[in-house]
Amino acid sequence: MAYITLPEGVPGIIGPMMFRPETAKPMNELVEVLLRGPHSLSSGERELIAAFTSYRNKTLFCYRSHGASAAHHLNGNIGLVYQVLEDYHRADISDKLKSLLAIAEKVQMDGKLVAQQDIDNAKQHGATELEIHDTVLIAAAFCMYNRYVDGLGTFQPAEIEAYRETGRMLAEDGYISAIPEPQTV
Amino acid sequence: MAYITLPEGVPGIIGPMMFRPETAKPMNELVEVLLRGPHSLSSGERELIAAFTSYRNKTLFCYRSHGASAAHHLNGNIGLVYQVLEDYHRADISDKLKSLLAIAEKVQMDGKLVAQQDIDNAKQHGATELEIHDTVLIAAAFCMYNRYVDGLGTFQPAEIEAYRETGRMLAEDGYISAIPEPQTV
Repeated sequence: MAYITLPEGVPGIIGPMMFRPETAKPMNELVEVLLRGPHSLSSGERELIAAFTSYRNKTLFCYRSHGASAAHHLNGNIGLVYQVLEDYHRADISDKLKSLLAIAEKVQMDGKLVAQQDIDNAKQHGATELEIHDTVLIAAAFCMYNRYVDGLGTFQPAEIEAYRETGRMLAEDGYISAIPEPQTV
Repeated sequence: MAYITLPEGVPGIIGPMMFRPETAKPMNELVEVLLRGPHSLSSGERELIAAFTSYRNKTLFCYRSHGASAAHHLNGNIGLVYQVLEDYHRADISDKLKSLLAIAEKVQMDGKLVAQQDIDNAKQHGATELEIHDTVLIAAAFCMYNRYVDGLGTFQPAEIEAYRETGRMLAEDGYISAIPEPQTV
């Protein structure tokens, strides 16, 4: 049972977003720009950063759903997604993405841990300033979404399979349309 | 020096927001609804929750500026603001606000720390579900803003006095107009 009165059986962030559409709107606009807006990083790469941050925060709903969306972008390769979440250093991804995940890893703990060396390392692997900015903001933003989902005690299904269709919808249709209209009582 | 190329001498979140107006827009819309939208909690109370979360994250720019905004809402009582930041249990604020700060305190660390007992306590002190929801989201959102400001290595002036006018502007004019238009190069 969630800590406030949410629509029954609605998983994760969707319930609180239906409860408070005034805050859901900018929250969805933000994640839409960050993960699906025009970018030199693919949506698959950006969803991996989101899923990785959520995994570090141990927020099941968020890493399952963004992991599923990342997998949809990556030709269904859910094995690669979970390798990134569990040990990205050994995953078959670019060195640039690894250097960005190293920044996200620090931001998840505390923004003050990011050091000039992390930025230099990312730039040496070809990361642009926009990519570095957005990596910091994706990791920071998921520290918000994760706390929102956990702090209200929402329902978070455990099974990976429960998220496959959600991942497809997020990847194909995006975030703006992901929240149902509030129901009239 | 910030980690990416930001306008010189511009403090805190303002530089990154000028760098990336596409993400600044929803971020400002969110904080405007949360801290200045119509509500049963005063803007002073909500700014206190924002400043308190930022103080816990040790993000100087954010707790100084939202502390100054809270003080502006509270007839200039900056002493009360810093008492709340440093030891809210002993501050001259309502028991309801203390119960909401206790929830924010847990969300700042990890949303999963919030327990039914914290919610029951807030409700016994008269908190509504909307007030509980928004407390969780304010604390969660400032975990984003704080990491964004710190993770990019922005310039954060230390002196309380440097924030007095910022606090007045945020309290009176709000967040939507707080970011200058991007400069053409």
